[in-house]
Amino acid sequence: MDYVYGPGRNHLFVPGPVNIPEPVIRAMNRNNEDYRSPAVPAMTKFLLEDVKKIFKTTTGTPFMIPTTGTGAWESALTNTLSPGDRIVSFLIGQFSLLWIDQQQRLNFNVDVVESEWGQGANLDILASKLAADTAHTIKAICIVHNETATGVTNNLSEVRKILDDYRHPALFLVDGVSSICALDFRMDEWGVDVALTGSQKALSLPTGMGILCASPKALEASKTAKSVRVFFDWNDYLKFYKLGTFWPYTPSIQLLYGLRAALDLIFEEGLENVIARHSRLGQATRLAVEAWGLKNCTQKEEWYSDTVTAVLVPPYIDSSEIVRRAWKRYNLSLGLGLNKVAGKVFRIGHLGNLNELQLLGCLAGVEMVLKDVGYPVKLGSGVAAACAYLQNTTPLIPSRI
Amino acid sequence: MDYVYGPGRNHLFVPGPVNIPEPVIRAMNRNNEDYRSPAVPAMTKFLLEDVKKIFKTTTGTPFMIPTTGTGAWESALTNTLSPGDRIVSFLIGQFSLLWIDQQQRLNFNVDVVESEWGQGANLDILASKLAADTAHTIKAICIVHNETATGVTNNLSEVRKILDDYRHPALFLVDGVSSICALDFRMDEWGVDVALTGSQKALSLPTGMGILCASPKALEASKTAKSVRVFFDWNDYLKFYKLGTFWPYTPSIQLLYGLRAALDLIFEEGLENVIARHSRLGQATRLAVEAWGLKNCTQKEEWYSDTVTAVLVPPYIDSSEIVRRAWKRYNLSLGLGLNKVAGKVFRIGHLGNLNELQLLGCLAGVEMVLKDVGYPVKLGSGVAAACAYLQNTTPLIPSRI
Amino acid sequence: MDYVYGPGRNHLFVPGPVNIPEPVIRAMNRNNEDYRSPAVPAMTKFLLEDVKKIFKTTTGTPFMIPTTGTGAWESALTNTLSPGDRIVSFLIGQFSLLWIDQQQRLNFNVDVVESEWGQGANLDILASKLAADTAHTIKAICIVHNETATGVTNNLSEVRKILDDYRHPALFLVDGVSSICALDFRMDEWGVDVALTGSQKALSLPTGMGILCASPKALEASKTAKSVRVFFDWNDYLKFYKLGTFWPYTPSIQLLYGLRAALDLIFEEGLENVIARHSRLGQATRLAVEAWGLKNCTQKEEWYSDTVTAVLVPPYIDSSEIVRRAWKRYNLSLGLGLNKVAGKVFRIGHLGNLNELQLLGCLAGVEMVLKDVGYPVKLGSGVAAACAYLQNTTPLIPSRI
Amino acid sequence: MDYVYGPGRNHLFVPGPVNIPEPVIRAMNRNNEDYRSPAVPAMTKFLLEDVKKIFKTTTGTPFMIPTTGTGAWESALTNTLSPGDRIVSFLIGQFSLLWIDQQQRLNFNVDVVESEWGQGANLDILASKLAADTAHTIKAICIVHNETATGVTNNLSEVRKILDDYRHPALFLVDGVSSICALDFRMDEWGVDVALTGSQKALSLPTGMGILCASPKALEASKTAKSVRVFFDWNDYLKFYKLGTFWPYTPSIQLLYGLRAALDLIFEEGLENVIARHSRLGQATRLAVEAWGLKNCTQKEEWYSDTVTAVLVPPYIDSSEIVRRAWKRYNLSLGLGLNKVAGKVFRIGHLGNLNELQLLGCLAGVEMVLKDVGYPVKLGSGVAAACAYLQNTTPLIPSRI
Repeated sequence: MDYVYGPGRNHLFVPGPVNIPEPVIRAMNRNNEDYRSPAVPAMTKFLLEDVKKIFKTTTGTPFMIPTTGTGAWESALTNTLSPGDRIVSFLIGQFSLLWIDQQQRLNFNVDVVESEWGQGANLDILASKLAADTAHTIKAICIVHNETATGVTNNLSEVRKILDDYRHPALFLVDGVSSICALDFRMDEWGVDVALTGSQKALSLPTGMGILCASPKALEASKTAKSVRVFFDWNDYLKFYKLGTFWPYTPSIQLLYGLRAALDLIFEEGLENVIARHSRLGQATRLAVEAWGLKNCTQKEEWYSDTVTAVLVPPYIDSSEIVRRAWKRYNLSLGLGLNKVAGKVFRIGHLGNLNELQLLGCLAGVEMVLKDVGYPVKLGSGVAAACAYLQNTTPLIPSRI
Repeated sequence: MDYVYGPGRNHLFVPGPVNIPEPVIRAMNRNNEDYRSPAVPAMTKFLLEDVKKIFKTTTGTPFMIPTTGTGAWESALTNTLSPGDRIVSFLIGQFSLLWIDQQQRLNFNVDVVESEWGQGANLDILASKLAADTAHTIKAICIVHNETATGVTNNLSEVRKILDDYRHPALFLVDGVSSICALDFRMDEWGVDVALTGSQKALSLPTGMGILCASPKALEASKTAKSVRVFFDWNDYLKFYKLGTFWPYTPSIQLLYGLRAALDLIFEEGLENVIARHSRLGQATRLAVEAWGLKNCTQKEEWYSDTVTAVLVPPYIDSSEIVRRAWKRYNLSLGLGLNKVAGKVFRIGHLGNLNELQLLGCLAGVEMVLKDVGYPVKLGSGVAAACAYLQNTTPLIPSRI
Repeated sequence: MDYVYGPGRNHLFVPGPVNIPEPVIRAMNRNNEDYRSPAVPAMTKFLLEDVKKIFKTTTGTPFMIPTTGTGAWESALTNTLSPGDRIVSFLIGQFSLLWIDQQQRLNFNVDVVESEWGQGANLDILASKLAADTAHTIKAICIVHNETATGVTNNLSEVRKILDDYRHPALFLVDGVSSICALDFRMDEWGVDVALTGSQKALSLPTGMGILCASPKALEASKTAKSVRVFFDWNDYLKFYKLGTFWPYTPSIQLLYGLRAALDLIFEEGLENVIARHSRLGQATRLAVEAWGLKNCTQKEEWYSDTVTAVLVPPYIDSSEIVRRAWKRYNLSLGLGLNKVAGKVFRIGHLGNLNELQLLGCLAGVEMVLKDVGYPVKLGSGVAAACAYLQNTTPLIPSRI
Repeated sequence: MDYVYGPGRNHLFVPGPVNIPEPVIRAMNRNNEDYRSPAVPAMTKFLLEDVKKIFKTTTGTPFMIPTTGTGAWESALTNTLSPGDRIVSFLIGQFSLLWIDQQQRLNFNVDVVESEWGQGANLDILASKLAADTAHTIKAICIVHNETATGVTNNLSEVRKILDDYRHPALFLVDGVSSICALDFRMDEWGVDVALTGSQKALSLPTGMGILCASPKALEASKTAKSVRVFFDWNDYLKFYKLGTFWPYTPSIQLLYGLRAALDLIFEEGLENVIARHSRLGQATRLAVEAWGLKNCTQKEEWYSDTVTAVLVPPYIDSSEIVRRAWKRYNLSLGLGLNKVAGKVFRIGHLGNLNELQLLGCLAGVEMVLKDVGYPVKLGSGVAAACAYLQNTTPLIPSRI
């Protein structure tokens, strides 16, 4: 079963699924349980309360659905919208593309605002569309907070500001898959109506749980939304929430206990510290990329992502070869370039339960791979740049002071 | 996290989620991995081949979807049917009811054939409907192989026979959630078009994987089916099958390794032996029920289920009290009566990775609970009846001979 | 690696190693750690305090040694005695025999008091020896609290009483391997000088930790004891206790965390409840044996053991065949008869983390095996007798009320 | 239980206990088993055969004792020697010192050959002692293959050569705790009589198993050795080897399965590749130390250790502060300087299941800590030097080519 065994740890730096901390692996190491016993609902109740904290919402209603991010997208859309509804959606990379594809297949009327890959959402166009939409035909704005394919973070507070400027009632639907619990995300403050993430991203769990939070406005919208839905229907959950048994169908017992452990670790570290750590690791990565003389796929600093960095390689190098070689020679898992940037970028995921030395090991590995494939990198240069920054900024581990 | 701790093992006899064997728990005890590395597709390829064996199909196409049984239902329906399509569906208990509810919410024209709870599907009515349907307006027959709420197993080969008798082209869609890998199920021989199960049932895994197999005819139907679907769309899988990367979105690494281990155990025991073991444990349970002087909710022997037994209690007893007390006093998890039979039956799930002595411990526990709640059971009577049967029929463990 | 795989759980009823509770397995599921970091000593400090509670001592000094019960024996002897010292030791079964063999090989002058196997220590002889020993040539009394081979529990408070009656200063050394944490054991109250157990017994951990407690008198004796010892020398521990680093050589990180979890479970259940549970399971087992028409190897009720029951089989049956068959057919692990009682008894271990239904499953299995080997048992009879008792005496699980 | 939690992985670079590979953690994640069932002896038989391979012996007899390295030392000595026997022993660091302390406390007549810490064993003195010992009063040569405190590897083939030169019959006893399975070790070729290691070192298991191999000459010596021993007595094992049940007392089931998995990984990688990997990581570490402008505690290249590097710090720095800070700020566990070199060296353990990027992460961490404590290191310099070497020498992972 481990037929591709290599000695030592696999260095997992794809932008998901990410490293699971040992305490979470332990918590999930268990037999099944009867989810209709009093124990599971009691546990679920606290999980639902606690999960709201990572969305920074007190008014939202959370749903933990046995699905992936793709399913969470579908749940967000079909519960709030009706076929034919006009929505504005931003295409800035592979994952926003896939979400738009889903929106179109679900029969919404998608008004796509496209940017060059490597740029953020074009919010000027959003402003002009909202300005023009005095009839409020736009029912929702769909935006990916962090485009995992290009390492671009969109400015959500600006989206809210624009919606407010035009007093536009459109729903504000956010894919927070590679942002929530890693980047600064504020559901209530930014007036987000549906936000969603997946368990295998910054929460550092296995794949299998799509987590959404719906604002009161989104819940209200769900009462009239005509999109056909059953498995993803919030109403089935709400019915069981009222009964206090919580689950319309069988949840993964293991993921529930895993989530409990994951949240405990996050709260122990402190959510703000978690976000600061991601910021620190993101900056260290970018400094290394710069030291290597390579370009960040993200074109402006305002869009830099603290969860994933897409690195452009010179035209004479195939970035897929970097990813292949990293895995084959150094047991290092990097992210491929996808679609338009296939062969042109490789990606370093630096999200989830990760620390400074793990990242430095990865950066040292990337340097060696770059040399392997013929890029004239100065070995040690990226690590040196990252170290100089990290040695200044890394705090003591609070529990060990 | 274990705030309802009781000493010793929990005796898990709900009809799902079921006990996970230790080797499978071990196999899942792992960090995440990059699912785009060569390792995961290589593993997936073998899993897809092997999973067909438990459906007894060589011509079917399997899909392993990160969802539950409810999602697997939805995938079966939306990939093969169009809104408004007429389907015949059998209502014989809570799970067939829920599937029918889904069918209606997905806008099919559901022709419900209802039986009393405790009886199997009324196939005479099916015959008459097919006889009358010379125009072939019936697009699909939807049937639950084993109704988990009442412990009723429907006769699928008879369904096929009737379809053949009338040369009716309707698709034959089967919920095998509490049957596949436990009861005799023969996809190809019975001409089933879509069969499905969930990981947490007889496969003895955690919840989180819905597994379907589609016949060539079902795949053909999917090309014209107009039901809206994205997350559950087979085409996304088929596209990635062709690419050899297999996954349109992130799978659970842990469930993949778990499934590998689960299948290995099943093949080591031998699928026919697994089925024989279920038959043995089912019969032992029924003999115990009889010895207790209680009635099986299942009204005729032809429908007896070898995966779950629903036991009717006398009117002066609330079956929920039995379930509560079993858990509170004996660390025994039994299944509640649902909906129409709430308070009237409790259920013993005897499916998945289970052996004779585990069942006998459960039966002893049930006896004590029955006495606790005022039923005049003769302690030891059910165990004695079960032992008499098991002592005659249990084979030596092959690997230990 | 699981080449003797059988479906379902192994029913582990040997008197050690015993079943490990899931929370303990989880706690040990971890990587190694630096045992010289501040974390491990901090943890060790609390463990040493807590471990004293299961010995019921406040004045004793605990030692947790990376060894087995055999090593713990050696540590108890060599730290308190000098070669040639006269000790009184009771031979009542295989484990007391092995301890005596060790005592002799360590060059003590062992005054063996032998009883028939199935009887307890002959304390009358002890009394007469002490009476005669006005010169106090007897340096220590060595006694096994619970003889695992025959299921005989010795009366330790009576030993203390006799020592006191004769105001004899002999050290009182107790093997509590199959008693501590399961039977009533009171180190301080009974004036025990060294008591010891092994991790794989009632503590329900893996093998690998021998735990001793030494009274102040024993520690004093260790200053002059001339037996050669290094690995088992308490002084090396005491030196590191003073330094606050605790470990003279590398401990098992996994067993430390496992012990932490095991003690937490014991304290959560309540030590007195744990002991009551063992008493309940012991009594239930004996009632079953009686119902089967078989004899307990233990000849008098005063010696009945609540952790292990040795069952005598009729002369025409080889008890080894029972053990073999239980394992081969029912995945049930029973204890063999050892030495003098080989072939004549089989043993049911009912110690450690175990509950009523687990035991009843075992008893049902024993009944079937008895029938298999030709003993005319009435199937269900033992289970019925045990159930009748347990249904009256089993308390609700406190955390679930 | 994780009250010193820090985000991300702990970077474990003490020279033991070392990182356990995930497949081994998985293999040990299990309940106890009856060690008297046919399964455990069958497994043990293969383990004993396979364990000989890592000692490179075909004629040796292996013993797997539930103890630590300290216990394994005691077993080696007491089974082959008698009190008063003259032995030559080399004092070159803390662990050889501790072994000599044990030898003296076990009442051997120890002829200590001391070297400055940082130097290897003085074999010239050995030669002269052997030359002078025409009466063969020297019964054994005791030598630590790799002194873990100073990172010094002794030349064992030279020891053999000297013994042969003088045709001296002294037993050749080797502590291979931090060498076997990591450094080139050849029991048969070098005529070693007893070699030993501990599970938590290069085998990458938890602590708890001391493994020895005894040559036929050592076994012969054990027949007349008069040292008192019981727990560590080889004869008890040999008796049970003959019986085919193998275990005189309870082994750790978990460690047996863990050892099975550990050996499987070692054989899959190839023992020679494992040794080459250690050589590569050792050399990379030394190049980093040199680049930092620091000195290796080991004074000559011929003694350089490929499993641990002790780094001398300038007099104005306390090396303990480096270790403390590494743990508190970077979750990096380094080895302290011990005894004579306390405060003067810190140690990087690079043995066991480890790969290049893990080491580079560690080296980057060391650089930052050096800067933290005021040493004017050029950040990135050590990593650069190590990378330059590793990028040239690291092979592709065979299973991934």
